[in-house]
Amino acid sequence: MDKDSLSCVHDRIKPHIHRTPVLTSRLINAIAGANLYFKCENFQRMGAFKMRGATNAIMQLSEDQKNKGVVTHSSGNFAQALSLAAQRLGVCAYIVMPKTAPQVKKNAVKDYGGHIIECEPTLEAREQTAKQLVQTKGATFIHPSNDLNVILGQATAGKEFLEDYPNLNAIFTPVGGGGLIAGTAIAVKHFGKNCKVIGGEPIEADDAYRSLKSGQIESNTTTNTIADGLKTQLGSVNFPIIQREVTRIIRVEESEIIDAMKLLWERMKIICEPSSAVALAALLKKKDQYRNQQLGVIISGGNVDLSKLPF
Amino acid sequence: MDKDSLSCVHDRIKPHIHRTPVLTSRLINAIAGANLYFKCENFQRMGAFKMRGATNAIMQLSEDQKNKGVVTHSSGNFAQALSLAAQRLGVCAYIVMPKTAPQVKKNAVKDYGGHIIECEPTLEAREQTAKQLVQTKGATFIHPSNDLNVILGQATAGKEFLEDYPNLNAIFTPVGGGGLIAGTAIAVKHFGKNCKVIGGEPIEADDAYRSLKSGQIESNTTTNTIADGLKTQLGSVNFPIIQREVTRIIRVEESEIIDAMKLLWERMKIICEPSSAVALAALLKKKDQYRNQQLGVIISGGNVDLSKLPF
Repeated sequence: MDKDSLSCVHDRIKPHIHRTPVLTSRLINAIAGANLYFKCENFQRMGAFKMRGATNAIMQLSEDQKNKGVVTHSSGNFAQALSLAAQRLGVCAYIVMPKTAPQVKKNAVKDYGGHIIECEPTLEAREQTAKQLVQTKGATFIHPSNDLNVILGQATAGKEFLEDYPNLNAIFTPVGGGGLIAGTAIAVKHFGKNCKVIGGEPIEADDAYRSLKSGQIESNTTTNTIADGLKTQLGSVNFPIIQREVTRIIRVEESEIIDAMKLLWERMKIICEPSSAVALAALLKKKDQYRNQQLGVIISGGNVDLSKLPF
Repeated sequence: MDKDSLSCVHDRIKPHIHRTPVLTSRLINAIAGANLYFKCENFQRMGAFKMRGATNAIMQLSEDQKNKGVVTHSSGNFAQALSLAAQRLGVCAYIVMPKTAPQVKKNAVKDYGGHIIECEPTLEAREQTAKQLVQTKGATFIHPSNDLNVILGQATAGKEFLEDYPNLNAIFTPVGGGGLIAGTAIAVKHFGKNCKVIGGEPIEADDAYRSLKSGQIESNTTTNTIADGLKTQLGSVNFPIIQREVTRIIRVEESEIIDAMKLLWERMKIICEPSSAVALAALLKKKDQYRNQQLGVIISGGNVDLSKLPF
């Protein structure tokens, strides 16, 4: 993956995504003792960076593949992203969701034109149902994070960030399935100047932290975190990129996630998900090591149930 | 007040304020049947447009006046704005607040370096206490909305808005004390092209609506509204400007304010005050009259108690 290829990806998806703004806060800078820049993907179409990867993955398909549709299993932002990207590109999207998924998430997918196929709430049922759709409809399966075209789409957030702020010393992202941090690492490799890539991960879902330590993909032992977008597992496509390019992963407590989220809401005046706050929580936890630096933070998404706030 | 003078005001305060971004939402456009542009003064320094007017008013003082300090009575955003603007300009700010004001608002003023002088929670005590400070300290009284320099400061939001979007057919603002809408009207007069200025006001605090009808300043008969920034009264300086330049004021129900606020939080992913939502609520209430137009909405502020949300 060279620099020009990433620029091609960006040019391809540009008509379908927003170039999101970068915000700052004097007060959060004072707290951190550094200059922080927040890339607001909560203002992205459908409310999260996932729109970038979903769009790129669909656009890479052949006409024949597009005619047969795409399928994924997700009850989170990728379900909405694939639905909206498919709708914009005139492609049919099948979304496998557990029966037990909240009605509000099902409605969001339907609003974006996705076709929901319900299954039992197990990993096995989910994969089996997706496989059936591939076989019966001829649809192409697109994984939410472990797919190179998805990762390259996510990389465009980091590319835009470095175009606007070329001298960042580090970019912090949350780590869930690994698509965002792997994409950011690719962008940083080509567009950064001695810029580090650092992940934030809940202690309650620390598969990436432990995988980097052991050198092989580890599974989550718990997923009891408020950052529901980060419960997913690393994959075989993104892990080698993360191993090669990511400097470190910092784990944070649930209370640190909630405090960082409240800071973003109260001081930045933006709505973001708990998952988004994990990157800031990680930075603040180790702020003494990044004093006076220029630090980027990717706010991954803003889809949150306002009736269930942790504060 | 000519065009050049307003440009001078803007140049004067620029180093002390943010040029706030303008955001849009495809979904809110679909709901409104028009193209809406939101000028996000909730991202302004200290979280509201009031920072503009407070800064301009202090900068217009003589050195002698600056040495003696400024005084206002407010328990809302203007108290914080005057404190922060004064702090930045090396001026002492005395803020008269009722004893009964929430501790969180007192803390915000203290954080920005304002000196709080408490009084009984009556209009009379408030005015008397401010008058004493003028007499004993020689401080200059600055009214939150009924002061030409404050109004001209607020006008810079509309000026920036029209610089970015010169073809707006109308700008909607909330109406409280009248400083923002009067300032916006001045900006529109000089920088707009057939652009209307339209106010949104809670039915529960509709002094401006009734004043425009009767042709003289009317008092609020109730102030039982969630939009706590809009409980204040029109004044003798801003009312003539509003009479001359504002097309109409649209009154909205409390439920319409809450619905509009929820729409802004959920779809725009921004934190804004109930007062901010009043302008959008007014637009949506009369959307059939503005179909397919280019409509600006000023989001006035984002200071809200997250533990007391109406949804």
